[in-house]
Amino acid sequence: MAGVWYDDYDVGHVFEFGEVTVVKEEIIGFARKYDPQPFHVDEEAAAAGVYGGIIASGWHTVCVCMRLIVDNMMGSESGSIGSPGLSEVSWPKPVRPGDTLRLRGEILEKIPSKSKPDRGFWRVRFAALNQDDEEVAVMVPLQYFLKRPDAPAESSAGN
Amino acid sequence: MAGVWYDDYDVGHVFEFGEVTVVKEEIIGFARKYDPQPFHVDEEAAAAGVYGGIIASGWHTVCVCMRLIVDNMMGSESGSIGSPGLSEVSWPKPVRPGDTLRLRGEILEKIPSKSKPDRGFWRVRFAALNQDDEEVAVMVPLQYFLKRPDAPAESSAGN
Repeated sequence: MAGVWYDDYDVGHVFEFGEVTVVKEEIIGFARKYDPQPFHVDEEAAAAGVYGGIIASGWHTVCVCMRLIVDNMMGSESGSIGSPGLSEVSWPKPVRPGDTLRLRGEILEKIPSKSKPDRGFWRVRFAALNQDDEEVAVMVPLQYFLKRPDAPAESSAGN
Repeated sequence: MAGVWYDDYDVGHVFEFGEVTVVKEEIIGFARKYDPQPFHVDEEAAAAGVYGGIIASGWHTVCVCMRLIVDNMMGSESGSIGSPGLSEVSWPKPVRPGDTLRLRGEILEKIPSKSKPDRGFWRVRFAALNQDDEEVAVMVPLQYFLKRPDAPAESSAGN
């Protein structure tokens, strides 16, 4: 998929991409650096704790999803110019070593910029699903996109 | 600060810790792995783009904050058992190379577990502030904590 711009898709469009397998060494390596709680980095402590084994830092799962989003929707050939934030990040189920994740994203809303006619926001619900089709992470960001440089100032594709 | 447990602090308590300086090499290194958009990884493209230079991936800022939280509140000597998610993640200002961040966290609410009397949630508003006292990231998680093993089942410290 080429990188996307504001007008390329409408509300209701669904993106689906992945997979990526989250291996134990990466779970522990990420968590040692950014989230060194025992249930992310210490196999013995994790086995004795509430999760019964190592689980991925929720932020690691988010970062794995972000890489999928960038590889499939953003990068140098897209209109993506960042995000002001998210109204939800949740982790309904733990991610365990060896889990394979794919990502589903649905455009919930498109909000044209009030001050800048060349750009606007998408509100997207991204859900990471594991190999058993269980949601393991949900993220609802506003994504900020430029319109394609050749797009008309008032595009009929917006809402 | 020793690791914290559910009953240790009440609504309104404010934690403050840091600082940490976010250097360019780390910004680019993190983003190459998890968020390789041009304005995070490509100095020339970033200089020509909407931010006028490299900015940190918002997820990098979140991860830097998470490490501060774990180092100061969690780890093997705390009752922390994770988080089901956040109702807000926002980035009001960009983080640029050389910015020095500190973290402020205020307990907004304490919610005892309905099914498990040995644990409960804190809703916390964490804000990362830069060297100019500007908020650059805001996170509002539910943090799940056990009570201290020697705490009474119905603690007077809860709300």
